[in-house]
Amino acid sequence: MIQVAVMGYGTVGSGVVEVIEKNKEEINKKSGEPINIKYILDLRDFPGDPYADKITHDVEEILNDSEVKIICETMGGLKPAYDFTRRALLSGKSVCTSNKELVATYGPELIKIAHENNCNYLFEASVGGGIPIIRPLNYSLTAEKIDAITGILNGTTNYILSKMEKDGACYDEVLKEAQEKGYAERNPEADVEGYDACRKIAILSSLMCGKTMKYQDIYTEGITKITTTDFAYAHACGKTIKLLALSREEDGKYYAMVAPFMISKSHPLYMVNGVFNAVCVHGNMLGDSMYYGRGAGKLPTASAVVSDVVDCARHIGKVIMCFWDAEEVALTGIDRTSRRFFVRVPLEKEKEAIHVFEKVSVIEADVPGEFGFITDEMTEAEFNEKAGKLGIISRIRVE
Amino acid sequence: MIQVAVMGYGTVGSGVVEVIEKNKEEINKKSGEPINIKYILDLRDFPGDPYADKITHDVEEILNDSEVKIICETMGGLKPAYDFTRRALLSGKSVCTSNKELVATYGPELIKIAHENNCNYLFEASVGGGIPIIRPLNYSLTAEKIDAITGILNGTTNYILSKMEKDGACYDEVLKEAQEKGYAERNPEADVEGYDACRKIAILSSLMCGKTMKYQDIYTEGITKITTTDFAYAHACGKTIKLLALSREEDGKYYAMVAPFMISKSHPLYMVNGVFNAVCVHGNMLGDSMYYGRGAGKLPTASAVVSDVVDCARHIGKVIMCFWDAEEVALTGIDRTSRRFFVRVPLEKEKEAIHVFEKVSVIEADVPGEFGFITDEMTEAEFNEKAGKLGIISRIRVE
Repeated sequence: MIQVAVMGYGTVGSGVVEVIEKNKEEINKKSGEPINIKYILDLRDFPGDPYADKITHDVEEILNDSEVKIICETMGGLKPAYDFTRRALLSGKSVCTSNKELVATYGPELIKIAHENNCNYLFEASVGGGIPIIRPLNYSLTAEKIDAITGILNGTTNYILSKMEKDGACYDEVLKEAQEKGYAERNPEADVEGYDACRKIAILSSLMCGKTMKYQDIYTEGITKITTTDFAYAHACGKTIKLLALSREEDGKYYAMVAPFMISKSHPLYMVNGVFNAVCVHGNMLGDSMYYGRGAGKLPTASAVVSDVVDCARHIGKVIMCFWDAEEVALTGIDRTSRRFFVRVPLEKEKEAIHVFEKVSVIEADVPGEFGFITDEMTEAEFNEKAGKLGIISRIRVE
Repeated sequence: MIQVAVMGYGTVGSGVVEVIEKNKEEINKKSGEPINIKYILDLRDFPGDPYADKITHDVEEILNDSEVKIICETMGGLKPAYDFTRRALLSGKSVCTSNKELVATYGPELIKIAHENNCNYLFEASVGGGIPIIRPLNYSLTAEKIDAITGILNGTTNYILSKMEKDGACYDEVLKEAQEKGYAERNPEADVEGYDACRKIAILSSLMCGKTMKYQDIYTEGITKITTTDFAYAHACGKTIKLLALSREEDGKYYAMVAPFMISKSHPLYMVNGVFNAVCVHGNMLGDSMYYGRGAGKLPTASAVVSDVVDCARHIGKVIMCFWDAEEVALTGIDRTSRRFFVRVPLEKEKEAIHVFEKVSVIEADVPGEFGFITDEMTEAEFNEKAGKLGIISRIRVE
């Protein structure tokens, strides 16, 4: 019998308990020994809950119980999760987490502490909800030199953009509806400004290079400025608009960014709609591979946490491979990276725009008073200079 | 230093050598110890090849060398691969294979021998080429009860169908072109009749249920009867035609089949074109997840073999979890499984068809002299009875 504690009985935490109960047979077979939930840490009481007798308000009870071998940290946030996780690992208890903020901020330190104490810090649920992506990166693509990761890593923004595209509705309207449905938080900033996706691409990129890519260094732009007019242009040229989180390695140099992109129908991420997420990984031998599934939600995320519990259960006292050093990677600024841009200018600037950008592909979207086009490939710096000179309505990058 | 032997210096075998050489740094880091190719077994000599001095014609040299810990079996076929693999495993050498025929036929026996001898029989490359799918099933989806797998598992047929759709070309023409390009074999039967996909879905389904699904028991239908007219109908109703390999669990009963299906634009497999393959897995907590990438080709397949080598290198003397018992699963015949069908009848049978099938969705494809429609959901048995009574031109299942 392997004793487990769940820290945080919110959405994901209660999902973890539900998954362990519902799929007991499969999970115990794969763990090699039955999994038992001994404690659930939460500030609240849950009278009438079938697990009410497991609730404790005192973290010391868990940390001091030598029977507890695995902890699911589903509290979120840095405080007190960081302190609890650190102390658990120092006492040789493995920790499985869905807490992307903690992983993006203290990942390498916590992994190191785990390995020094012959236990593990696993975080499959921190990126892509239920999509297996951390394990494929760490265990499957081991013969590859990975040079590019491109993902749709946030369910809320993908739901909003998909809905804007499908219904022709405006951003504010769709956001409001998403909030009513519980797909977006009342304060949606972390999602719509791209901060959530930024932390997730920081984690994936760090695993790609084996060092630390600080999320604070990643250029991040949200979706709040995307309009129905942008989608009209996208439709007119057979594309759609997605919030992409990407990182690239070129000649040993790295860059990463989160921003809305126009992508075409032939792009594997084109069909990723609604609350689904996906990650494209490019390796030098395999080329592109893609991992797709539900990027959030109680049970998918909990399933990922429990898959980590199974892995820890099979490796009690043993270290599971994970290469993520504390050494920081210096990121190249995106100024020198190149791409095409979709640009909107007032109709009276049509000639000037063609003069400034030289080669443009005009998009016939019948938007009154405007001229919309896609530029040739150029660096962000070049683009900014030209666009600044010209005075544009807006621009979206093209992938 | 971990000594490795490669058995079979054909396309995949030479790819394995190339991957190990090119990504030496990454692979050795992940293996924990440098990987060295000590022998390459082949009947032929390779004068001038940089690895010519490693070539041996004598399998005994490899099997009797106690330094060799890992063998890559990239010969294909049952003989002599089965005998060589068995003897290698009996002497405690792990075997990594791309040989789907051997895995589908003797998988559970060879896994058992491996585990009894504290070594491993790994086969990531046997399904989906470079797409990580075996490892996600075995190590990632461990908290799930998997009840459905649906895949595009053969690159040749997907290339042919994609090309027929895109260019409006006929089957024979596209097959000929695929043969010229090396995407199809001179004798294409194993691919176009669905036998290759059948072996692959047998392997995935066996891992899904932990028992043996015999490929001989799986209903298999190829793509040789698909015509440009079928694609005209598919286009007219916003669908495409794909060769799907699928297996389902319903109330503890299993069925599996390989056949062409019409699928709609909203299906995650719709956008899988050309030589790309993909596998959709449905779990009871996670819902759908999908794994996408190059389903064949020298380097992608070799990369998967080498990822198994890395796994074996990290587990010398230890057994890696794999649940696949020799016990056979009794498959439900597909007769009692239900779905909709796309049907073509001569125009003069329009009224009779509507009478026999009651509810039909007519497809307006302007095919002279024909009436095409999609039926309501019914069992295969019911459909066959009605279609037999009516006399139809052809039918394709709808997913």
